[in-house]
Amino acid sequence: MSEWQFIDWVRKESLGHSNAHDRVILGPGDDAGIVRIGSSEVVVAADMLLEGVHFNLSSTPPELIGRKALAVNLSDIAAMGCRPVCALSSIAIPSHHGFELAQRITRGMIGLADQFDVALVGGDTNSWGTDSLANKNRANGQNDRVVVSVTVLGEPWSGVAPVRRSGAKPGDFVLVTGALGGSLGADDNGHHLSFMPRINESEKLVKSTAISAMIDLSDGLSTDAAHIAAESKITIQLNPDTIPIRGSIQRLPRKDQLHHAMTDGEDFELLFTAAPEAAERLIRTQPLDGITISQIGVCKAGEPQVIWSDGTPVPQRGFEHVLTR
Amino acid sequence: MSEWQFIDWVRKESLGHSNAHDRVILGPGDDAGIVRIGSSEVVVAADMLLEGVHFNLSSTPPELIGRKALAVNLSDIAAMGCRPVCALSSIAIPSHHGFELAQRITRGMIGLADQFDVALVGGDTNSWGTDSLANKNRANGQNDRVVVSVTVLGEPWSGVAPVRRSGAKPGDFVLVTGALGGSLGADDNGHHLSFMPRINESEKLVKSTAISAMIDLSDGLSTDAAHIAAESKITIQLNPDTIPIRGSIQRLPRKDQLHHAMTDGEDFELLFTAAPEAAERLIRTQPLDGITISQIGVCKAGEPQVIWSDGTPVPQRGFEHVLTR
Repeated sequence: MSEWQFIDWVRKESLGHSNAHDRVILGPGDDAGIVRIGSSEVVVAADMLLEGVHFNLSSTPPELIGRKALAVNLSDIAAMGCRPVCALSSIAIPSHHGFELAQRITRGMIGLADQFDVALVGGDTNSWGTDSLANKNRANGQNDRVVVSVTVLGEPWSGVAPVRRSGAKPGDFVLVTGALGGSLGADDNGHHLSFMPRINESEKLVKSTAISAMIDLSDGLSTDAAHIAAESKITIQLNPDTIPIRGSIQRLPRKDQLHHAMTDGEDFELLFTAAPEAAERLIRTQPLDGITISQIGVCKAGEPQVIWSDGTPVPQRGFEHVLTR
Repeated sequence: MSEWQFIDWVRKESLGHSNAHDRVILGPGDDAGIVRIGSSEVVVAADMLLEGVHFNLSSTPPELIGRKALAVNLSDIAAMGCRPVCALSSIAIPSHHGFELAQRITRGMIGLADQFDVALVGGDTNSWGTDSLANKNRANGQNDRVVVSVTVLGEPWSGVAPVRRSGAKPGDFVLVTGALGGSLGADDNGHHLSFMPRINESEKLVKSTAISAMIDLSDGLSTDAAHIAAESKITIQLNPDTIPIRGSIQRLPRKDQLHHAMTDGEDFELLFTAAPEAAERLIRTQPLDGITISQIGVCKAGEPQVIWSDGTPVPQRGFEHVLTR
């Protein structure tokens, strides 16, 4: 079973009570869920980062780990076209000097939270080394890997409906903020750790323009565009000449640049669609204060897939991350 | 630095933006946080369970692990006197057969969620074995320990304010639901895995009675009563003759029974306070359908502490869990 099969299973399994639940406005499968609490719509996203998978403790300051754990969730809220309000953080720490580590992780989280007026309202901190049900099973310290799990709660911007992955229509333009590829960089403190979640950009977009679908680029353009295609039931045609490439990989041959842009992931830019007139206005006016909006493709009627303009297949991510290091 | 020192640090560190934040009604340090989203109060709790610390995969069916991960959060919402609405679940799984494991964990979670009409609206599932930033650092499969991190969102019951730890007054009676101690039992499928979160009981209590303070018994009566004493700035006097003891440890000498009740933790019963007349009515009428309410002590003016009625100190939990196995 793959991750996608598992998510499909969760969606089906929870259909009986989640999507049919009178409080659920949007169930699993988008960047965030939406539920009604009291009389309000609450937008909620959760992401977990694992040591050795999403970061390396040996090469990354703990403050950046905490920052990233919050940032990926803020990016999800941005992808919904919504406003983040508060966060909860649950952390697993090693038994040795764990709370000092948790302190540094939390400090990095609060630093970013403050920039977006997001309040830290709770969480949980657990040491691998205490309260053990079975000390005999405890691995030694070096295997006590750090886990940071963050949940962010948000709300729609006043008067603006949240943006789903499912709203793209044939004829809509496909747009992206910023530049793509090479996010893992030459070291652990590259873009994937230091990126700025596109909260402010998302706010400007949804307040000014009818955005028909949106997602944040976490898994790579190839995979994430496929999510919009699948949920919106359209074909996405991408123009390889227009994909914006991050400066750090512009020295590479174009073919390699495109492979990185399509498959690296962790760009945390916004991929979105809008009707032609609205899209052209965004490209002409470039309202995002230095973050460029590029048109990279168009939505067509057809089976859910992502292809180049000439109909050839786009690069797919392999079983493992294709690393730049 | 200890866990309590860390939590104190988080509370101080976040004071500048959380408790002073115009959306934060109750910041870190209670069973759950309360935030205003839109025009509604949202109650939110997060708890993380670690393999080898909170459960053993070798002896516990994954369904029970998922059930527990949700149940501990529902218990927190119950302790606030609130109603759970939805949950998010983030899971770290081993690379080998991980998604099948995640499926079983999620199935157990959904089973309990359905009983309380709680919707699963999202989450995140990560394998220790894929997307690795540094495969060279990857430990082998046996160290890929399972982590389950759940967040539950809830709301106040209509017309009833959430109950905090801080509202106990001198003269209030100290009450507890059910029986305490021995929760870890003789095997991994004991009370700490199979307990029923006291959502229904909490609802009846807060709708019928002015509950002045409440907490769920997760760390043991000694520690959790101390939280109410500290937050309410009172002394709690407990009567050792009245502490209700779980059947499985009633064969032990009374002194040992009390030690278990005070320090085992994971009872997930409700500890609460109410003015004498209201408390006496609860004890007389026993409205909780077979779950006994016992008076076990009284609140006194004085420094924040928990003592026996004769002034002697109550048993304290050691650095490690005192295990019954």
